[in-house]
Amino acid sequence: MLDLRYPIGPFVEPATFTASDRAAAIRTLAELPARLRLACAGLSDGQLYTPYRPGGWTVRQVVHHTADSHVNAYIRLKFALAETNPTIKPYAEAVWAEMLDARTAPVALSLDLLEALHARLVMTLGDLPPAAFARTLFHPERGAMTVDSYLALYDWHSRHHTAHVTALREREGW
Amino acid sequence: MLDLRYPIGPFVEPATFTASDRAAAIRTLAELPARLRLACAGLSDGQLYTPYRPGGWTVRQVVHHTADSHVNAYIRLKFALAETNPTIKPYAEAVWAEMLDARTAPVALSLDLLEALHARLVMTLGDLPPAAFARTLFHPERGAMTVDSYLALYDWHSRHHTAHVTALREREGW
Amino acid sequence: MLDLRYPIGPFVEPATFTASDRAAAIRTLAELPARLRLACAGLSDGQLYTPYRPGGWTVRQVVHHTADSHVNAYIRLKFALAETNPTIKPYAEAVWAEMLDARTAPVALSLDLLEALHARLVMTLGDLPPAAFARTLFHPERGAMTVDSYLALYDWHSRHHTAHVTALREREGW
Amino acid sequence: MLDLRYPIGPFVEPATFTASDRAAAIRTLAELPARLRLACAGLSDGQLYTPYRPGGWTVRQVVHHTADSHVNAYIRLKFALAETNPTIKPYAEAVWAEMLDARTAPVALSLDLLEALHARLVMTLGDLPPAAFARTLFHPERGAMTVDSYLALYDWHSRHHTAHVTALREREGW
Repeated sequence: MLDLRYPIGPFVEPATFTASDRAAAIRTLAELPARLRLACAGLSDGQLYTPYRPGGWTVRQVVHHTADSHVNAYIRLKFALAETNPTIKPYAEAVWAEMLDARTAPVALSLDLLEALHARLVMTLGDLPPAAFARTLFHPERGAMTVDSYLALYDWHSRHHTAHVTALREREGW
Repeated sequence: MLDLRYPIGPFVEPATFTASDRAAAIRTLAELPARLRLACAGLSDGQLYTPYRPGGWTVRQVVHHTADSHVNAYIRLKFALAETNPTIKPYAEAVWAEMLDARTAPVALSLDLLEALHARLVMTLGDLPPAAFARTLFHPERGAMTVDSYLALYDWHSRHHTAHVTALREREGW
Repeated sequence: MLDLRYPIGPFVEPATFTASDRAAAIRTLAELPARLRLACAGLSDGQLYTPYRPGGWTVRQVVHHTADSHVNAYIRLKFALAETNPTIKPYAEAVWAEMLDARTAPVALSLDLLEALHARLVMTLGDLPPAAFARTLFHPERGAMTVDSYLALYDWHSRHHTAHVTALREREGW
Repeated sequence: MLDLRYPIGPFVEPATFTASDRAAAIRTLAELPARLRLACAGLSDGQLYTPYRPGGWTVRQVVHHTADSHVNAYIRLKFALAETNPTIKPYAEAVWAEMLDARTAPVALSLDLLEALHARLVMTLGDLPPAAFARTLFHPERGAMTVDSYLALYDWHSRHHTAHVTALREREGW
């Protein structure tokens, strides 16, 4: 049975990473702001306040969560590039998603934020020498991660949340 | 003698915080994106590549640093609101400011990022009950900080970096 | 043989316009900014300076032309709503496309412009009573046009120029 | 007695135009988006729905009118550069200001639009040889205008509408 929480399936960490895997992941990050914007294009305020699945976040919360999550990802990636195996700090995503801004702010804010943030992220990633993708960070919940595995995670995460919105629109005929 | 590094003087933590201090600090945060944009308006590429003081960051780096710093501040503030006295992680600002994006990206990216980020920040701060301003975080280098002292720090930080740009323009007659 | 100038074929004016035709055209206008942004996502400066077809405009010119054209369309639509059968003024698109800004400005400018402009356009169109779609304007080169036919033209125009970019990327394997 | 409609006084066409007058006018256009954004920073929805003077447009309408007016100005300027003494078409500003989008859309839309539009406008003006400022257009209501006089008009218009908002805030203590 289809799990509405995982429209593209759960994240599966790749066993290996080639230059072309990296290029594909960077392309996903370059496209995410436009894809999420397209997913939300033309939605009314009421539609943006609709849960993407019964009991789930609203479309609005999905968009603001994506921005919050990728702001954290941006920082952690820069930690990994600037320091040796930094321990990063997880965030309470369920709590953040219930804050006033995440529940009610116009989605345009987080779409604009993602546009600018991903442009800087993609510029940074596109400039890394291959060895830099083996740099590590320590995630208290996920364990040791390389820049490669981190990049794969946010490639998936970008497509995961966009699919929440597009799957809802398809089901609702919006 | 004037220290070009501190055009508005160094940060001095206020001893007390009134409701009107808070409102003034939130207003600074609400205005920062427009003030920094105005400070940069009409500058040529060459001017953006000019150090704001001999040996200092370029105007471009100042703008990207402001975005990087406030992205960290946004996250830390949400940590402080969502968790009990979280220990936050400092970042190596000098290293970040030398990354490719911070040295060369169009300033419009970080101005747009600040516009969106501060809108969410201001919405969050404007909704807090007075007691929330006494919540704390632990900064490994600065020690214990309340939301109040954190807000005062970024009020200063917003005006500090904007003044780097406006003071340079005034000295140069730009 | 495929005509690279017309990747989706030339404009064919529909004979009739139903409410659902109008809704589809308005949806195209709502999606255009995200679709054009997606079409350009991740392109390098060199790629943006590549003609979309031999002898044609560069990708950059295509984007700036789309903004210039839709700025004219926005104005003409408001003329048609505010006045009785106004005569609109054509513009010399080939000359405009060779001006400095159209040849060299960052595409982000026109993508942001289209984002904001289409949001206002879509809000205006979404609010019109059915009778308003029969209002007319007089185009010196195209003759009498209704809001309906004008809307159909810019639905096509949105998809036409996006396809210039996506077709180039496909041919080039970008 | 102070006329609230003219906080900086009515437009007075300069008798002559020097290179430094032109540079100052172009700088006003470069700064307008940031200045208007700053004028609106931190205003609540209710404040944005407040008339800037008794019986006048709301702050929101002032911002959307500024965008509509400058979209027309952008087009007319390009007409004047691309054609010989074109006759431009006035628009019914009072009617446009009462359309749904001008009355109710988020001001961020028109602030973003002005940001992008003025960047292209400033790039175009900054590249003109001195002789181009003597090019003309014919305005049915204002008569013959040069690019110089047109530029002076929009320099004034930029400061005029920004002052509507800042004067209101000052009077209201906002």
